[in-house]
Amino acid sequence: MLPEEPPAGAVIADLESEVWRAIDGKTKPIGSLGRVEEIAAQIGMTLGTLAPRVETCALTIFAADHGIAAEGVSAFPRAVTRQMVANFLAGGAAATVIAASLGVAVEVVDAGVAGEPMTDPKLVSRRIGAGTRSFLREAAMTAEECAAALASGRELAARARADALAFGEMGIGNTSAATMLAHRLTGLSLEALVGRGTGLDAAGLARKAAVLAEADARVGALATPEEALREFGGFEIAMMAGAMLGAAEAGKLVLVDGFIATSAALVAERIAPEARRAMIFSHVSAEAGHRALLERMAARPILSLDMRLGEGTGALLAWPIVKAAAAVLRDMASFESAGVSARL
Amino acid sequence: MLPEEPPAGAVIADLESEVWRAIDGKTKPIGSLGRVEEIAAQIGMTLGTLAPRVETCALTIFAADHGIAAEGVSAFPRAVTRQMVANFLAGGAAATVIAASLGVAVEVVDAGVAGEPMTDPKLVSRRIGAGTRSFLREAAMTAEECAAALASGRELAARARADALAFGEMGIGNTSAATMLAHRLTGLSLEALVGRGTGLDAAGLARKAAVLAEADARVGALATPEEALREFGGFEIAMMAGAMLGAAEAGKLVLVDGFIATSAALVAERIAPEARRAMIFSHVSAEAGHRALLERMAARPILSLDMRLGEGTGALLAWPIVKAAAAVLRDMASFESAGVSARL
Repeated sequence: MLPEEPPAGAVIADLESEVWRAIDGKTKPIGSLGRVEEIAAQIGMTLGTLAPRVETCALTIFAADHGIAAEGVSAFPRAVTRQMVANFLAGGAAATVIAASLGVAVEVVDAGVAGEPMTDPKLVSRRIGAGTRSFLREAAMTAEECAAALASGRELAARARADALAFGEMGIGNTSAATMLAHRLTGLSLEALVGRGTGLDAAGLARKAAVLAEADARVGALATPEEALREFGGFEIAMMAGAMLGAAEAGKLVLVDGFIATSAALVAERIAPEARRAMIFSHVSAEAGHRALLERMAARPILSLDMRLGEGTGALLAWPIVKAAAAVLRDMASFESAGVSARL
Repeated sequence: MLPEEPPAGAVIADLESEVWRAIDGKTKPIGSLGRVEEIAAQIGMTLGTLAPRVETCALTIFAADHGIAAEGVSAFPRAVTRQMVANFLAGGAAATVIAASLGVAVEVVDAGVAGEPMTDPKLVSRRIGAGTRSFLREAAMTAEECAAALASGRELAARARADALAFGEMGIGNTSAATMLAHRLTGLSLEALVGRGTGLDAAGLARKAAVLAEADARVGALATPEEALREFGGFEIAMMAGAMLGAAEAGKLVLVDGFIATSAALVAERIAPEARRAMIFSHVSAEAGHRALLERMAARPILSLDMRLGEGTGALLAWPIVKAAAAVLRDMASFESAGVSARL
């Protein structure tokens, strides 16, 4: 007969107190690394160790087009999604430049960009279709498309070779999709969530709000997170949600980027609540609804830099802080081991 | 006859508009990288180029003891300064662990640690004395000691081989010195500036406030920043101020850490206002007076992580963001070069 195991809750509580005992014993005044200590504790708890090795990060950028973009909800034309994919592949976009600067590998995934498939051999093709349908008029995708996008995301995360996975997105119109997901899954009002995206003016913002209210009225009660995703999501958002689930299942840390990535994290958390502990929220965006959504999810972002670009740029900038937090837990000396005097 | 040169002010205004034109032409919505764009602009202006190479960072930690520590103003005994120097050299302290994690080289300088000189060959000795005198009773240092500390800092910064220099400090009692410098150089009240340092309780905080008020009353009007430094400073603060001046003179970026480093930056700015443009303020500390001091200096910190450790830890964590900001200015494609469509 096997020895009786303690209940799972007790194991986690023990690990938590062990992690904090280790952090509090490090050669620094108690609490003096502030949020870095909290990140270190989360990493220790998630990976189940006092000596976490978190040394590599990879960024996957999911790109797809949105039918809703045809309804005048964005300041940029839909063609920009495809053009930006080419820019990622050429290394000239913000995310690829920042990733190169920080030593983070980048993979670009075509989750469903409009037009003919792009042929660059560096592009990872997981196309679900040539963009979603307009959710003002019908469901953005079928149940099969939604399941396929989630599955592709899981598969991509499972094969990724890095300790922490950052996920970014590109998709003209995707703040509209993220707004609808956040609204329908949290109950936050559309007014609290709708924002200027890539830079709408006041008239454009009013039009976007009207389009989203009309779409909201079209769709009745939704029973599952997958149903919300199918009605309003994008292929890149669904694939990112799947990738977050796959990363958490594979024991990797998930660096959550801005508003759209947070809507994917919300979907992932609703599908599998245990995925949440792997998620590190990197920054609060200047996009209007992000702060409200983070607060509703009780998520505390690391950075607040008035960024609103997406692509994974916020997750990239938070990555070195996450890496350093793991090193603090793993490598700092204790007062005892270093022979440093305690407080008076 | 040489062609007439435009006045310096015009050159700087031209450079500023050229830098912003470059940033606004990058493939991203205008302003969508928020504070990162402002940091990129500052780097471009400081280094006078649209293609700044900011790829290496070095941290210098200045350590020294303070006579004021004998007056009961700290939660830790004075011996901790020396013990922490040994911990830095062994690589077990927060700053050295974080620096190793981020690929930043560290140099530890004995600016005036109490007791016999330490003999570790890795320690850089620029000892001004075995700690300062208690500024509750007399000036912390002589004019000669102050000048020697500033000169050593300048020399160390001039020989440093990195694009950006971060400066940290260790010195039990040095929040008291920094508080007095900030108070006397800005006019901010002692009440707005005095804080718990390494972790004073309410009674300890009250004692510290009383000691600082008494020291303040001892010293009449001060004519120069050097006089303030001599009366209240520490050898590590004076040497850091000198290093900031030397770094700015050598055309390097200065990463300013927390409350004590900001007091050194204040001294440096008062000695040479042109040094200010090289200074990037890395974080706002949880030490009570730091936010007030930054606001008074019109300095906008990058991070806000409730840290209050010093050692250069905040500067280290901001470094990758500074590096990435330079890369954004240097390497991102323009809408034109990448063939990306403009706004609708």
